[in-house]
Amino acid sequence: MCAALEAATTGAQTLLLEGASGLGGVSAISGGEIYLGGGTALQKATGFEDSPEEMAKFLTAALGPFADEQRIAVYSEGSAEHFDWFVKQGVPFKPGLWDKPSWVPFTDDGLMWLGENTFPFYDLAVPAPRGHRPQTPGFAGVLLMERLIGRVANSSIDVRTNTKILRLVVDGDRVAGVVVSHFGATLTLRARRGVVLCVGGFIYNDDMLALHAPHLLGHSKIGTEGDDGRGILIAQAVGAQVKNMSGGQSALNLPVQLMIRSLLLNRHGQRFINEDTYGGLIGHAALVGGHAPIYMLLDETGFEEVPEDERLGRQPAWVSDDLGELEMEIGLAEGSLQTTVGLYNRHATTGEDPQFHKRSSFVRPLSPPYGVVDVCAHEYVPDGEGGTVLNTGFGAFTTGGLATSIDGQVIDLTGNLIPGLYAAGRTASGIQASGYISGTSLGDGTFFGRRAGRAAATSLP
Amino acid sequence: MCAALEAATTGAQTLLLEGASGLGGVSAISGGEIYLGGGTALQKATGFEDSPEEMAKFLTAALGPFADEQRIAVYSEGSAEHFDWFVKQGVPFKPGLWDKPSWVPFTDDGLMWLGENTFPFYDLAVPAPRGHRPQTPGFAGVLLMERLIGRVANSSIDVRTNTKILRLVVDGDRVAGVVVSHFGATLTLRARRGVVLCVGGFIYNDDMLALHAPHLLGHSKIGTEGDDGRGILIAQAVGAQVKNMSGGQSALNLPVQLMIRSLLLNRHGQRFINEDTYGGLIGHAALVGGHAPIYMLLDETGFEEVPEDERLGRQPAWVSDDLGELEMEIGLAEGSLQTTVGLYNRHATTGEDPQFHKRSSFVRPLSPPYGVVDVCAHEYVPDGEGGTVLNTGFGAFTTGGLATSIDGQVIDLTGNLIPGLYAAGRTASGIQASGYISGTSLGDGTFFGRRAGRAAATSLP
Repeated sequence: MCAALEAATTGAQTLLLEGASGLGGVSAISGGEIYLGGGTALQKATGFEDSPEEMAKFLTAALGPFADEQRIAVYSEGSAEHFDWFVKQGVPFKPGLWDKPSWVPFTDDGLMWLGENTFPFYDLAVPAPRGHRPQTPGFAGVLLMERLIGRVANSSIDVRTNTKILRLVVDGDRVAGVVVSHFGATLTLRARRGVVLCVGGFIYNDDMLALHAPHLLGHSKIGTEGDDGRGILIAQAVGAQVKNMSGGQSALNLPVQLMIRSLLLNRHGQRFINEDTYGGLIGHAALVGGHAPIYMLLDETGFEEVPEDERLGRQPAWVSDDLGELEMEIGLAEGSLQTTVGLYNRHATTGEDPQFHKRSSFVRPLSPPYGVVDVCAHEYVPDGEGGTVLNTGFGAFTTGGLATSIDGQVIDLTGNLIPGLYAAGRTASGIQASGYISGTSLGDGTFFGRRAGRAAATSLP
Repeated sequence: MCAALEAATTGAQTLLLEGASGLGGVSAISGGEIYLGGGTALQKATGFEDSPEEMAKFLTAALGPFADEQRIAVYSEGSAEHFDWFVKQGVPFKPGLWDKPSWVPFTDDGLMWLGENTFPFYDLAVPAPRGHRPQTPGFAGVLLMERLIGRVANSSIDVRTNTKILRLVVDGDRVAGVVVSHFGATLTLRARRGVVLCVGGFIYNDDMLALHAPHLLGHSKIGTEGDDGRGILIAQAVGAQVKNMSGGQSALNLPVQLMIRSLLLNRHGQRFINEDTYGGLIGHAALVGGHAPIYMLLDETGFEEVPEDERLGRQPAWVSDDLGELEMEIGLAEGSLQTTVGLYNRHATTGEDPQFHKRSSFVRPLSPPYGVVDVCAHEYVPDGEGGTVLNTGFGAFTTGGLATSIDGQVIDLTGNLIPGLYAAGRTASGIQASGYISGTSLGDGTFFGRRAGRAAATSLP
């Protein structure tokens, strides 16, 4: 939609083909966080200073190692304007900061932290909250998409739903159209200027996962069935290069308020990350770093500080006053929990965590009785909507995709641009490398989607 | 060479094109270990029982998670015959076991362990030594290649060196030839039956590493400049699918005898793996698992047990009687080394290591004075040949490549076989997934190379 809206402003005849029966896709069921900064109007109205440089430093560290620094620089530089563009599309943002660690705020405040104020990032970049969210409590993706859908409806864009892309049409060296399926009919459509592929990632294509990102197999899939990888494959069929195909987000599906008060332990009974950092980074470290299965150890005080409805139904699988007993019951080496908790407590008495650098405000010595949650127990847990869901511990989606220029033009196997072919969103490899921060998918998809739409609409055949 | 030798036995006119000025490639400078088993003649002559099933169990665990079980089953099943084939080519193997953990044996014994007798593998598969090495002390790759070169010279195979492949020629749906460069001249050659691409991996192509395996950038490259990825790219240009492109070996370049007596510590001062397992698995865990930089802590007894010439010049960067002092000097959290060594020593008094399962014979309590080697210090160290080399800590090569059938035929983006196109060696994705064991490159390359050569030679145009 962002690509089409931008294309339409150039006066180009714009056709938006949507495989589903309505617009919105997985963005409409997302939290709605958009990672923006560099001094947006919302940051200023909420009293935060920021700069593109500090934003770029954070993203380079948090999305890396090996994040695309050129892409991040362009994104950070254009971020404040991109926020203004959302406002112009009618997306409301309320000045105000949700200041509590969580996946999604409970209020309609427009700003939230996404790890900027946690170790090691506060040492690497001046912290500023950069999670921008449309004005609604909880999941805000639906509001964001509603407003964009409204804008598309009031534009010159010709929208055709239930229209799935099958392949690209090439005329000489140039991509000149698409073959689509519409209720069983196959149609061939000529694109006068360009085609922009924004058809999702490949988390719903298990064959592609097995080839490129097998570690994401078997976990909860974050996406829609449209994330079948077809956009990547049909572009590869005309010579496109791919990038970071093993990349992905693997979020540990954990109640943040419990997590932050816990010691997160790996399969050896050791801590492996600061428990107060952004949840997406914790899941990635747990899965890719080989730490899983993961155990969450709290004391009674920690459990009781978190209201029942913020625990997502997580109950300790093991409870004891004695860490040695817990080691035996969980199957950890004798002494492993005792040394881990002992080292943590030794420094926690002064509010310090020199080994993993959890923020002082969440550091205090743990005391018996203890409870341990079996994070990767593959149990059915409440889904927060009155039902239950199988909790494998992780929820996953892909971030790898087509290699593109910063204007969204697809790059071929020899490093040259493919005339007439553009891509954005999870069909393209974005600003993410190995790490992931919430809001960077909506952020990068909408930002580089706009650039791709404009570039495609103004390219000369 | 294996593909060509097998093709020639079918009576097919066989042309072997080599980009370098002579045959052998990186195999000739390798250790020469070939991972074979399932009851080879050499295993029997040395007194070891083995079965394809136990071999497959080990490989599935050690090369995984997500190793290709079908490919491993075929490989394990055919492994004893493949050993006999080497013997028929004139490669000598001496019955006898090198029973000491090391990268390369000092004797000419034909068998060595490659992690089969370490945790967790001894619990998952009946251990048998499966590292098969031509009869020569130290690096045996040159002997292996010499014998194969001799066989090729005495065959009907037409060998053309200094001939680099530029691209494939397609006739209809079929790969029907190659375009090559030979001293500046460009030649087009028709293949009557098939083309087998065996032109190495892409560790010498930094652009491809940045796209697919950026974590392998910047380390010592294990390969030749021929590992420029061209085989993968030219096959992709005719529609080939790739697999596991982020895969690779990242060996920690450490003296095994020191390593096995040490506690290997991560950047938090914690242990992360059993120090007696195969070195390739340690490097992978260290780099991909996010544990680096790595520290190797020994006590004086441990250092003195290892002769100077087996230390590869590694000297401790820090020495002290006091673990607290070492923590400060290295920059680790106060108490971290003390807890790690304390927990290890607590069990080591009875020869046990319940947290990481190092074999009892290498487990004893450590006592002052201690020395810590800075494994990833980026220092110049002796190269073992009288010179020096910059030690980044890791040596890397790629294992990702073309997706192929078990007969080596290249698979296209839609999952179909490409008529006339085959691949083997590091140009193809082999039995390795995320893990790596020495000998599996020579093993898989020669085994599936033979299958590809036979399939190509007998395919009908």
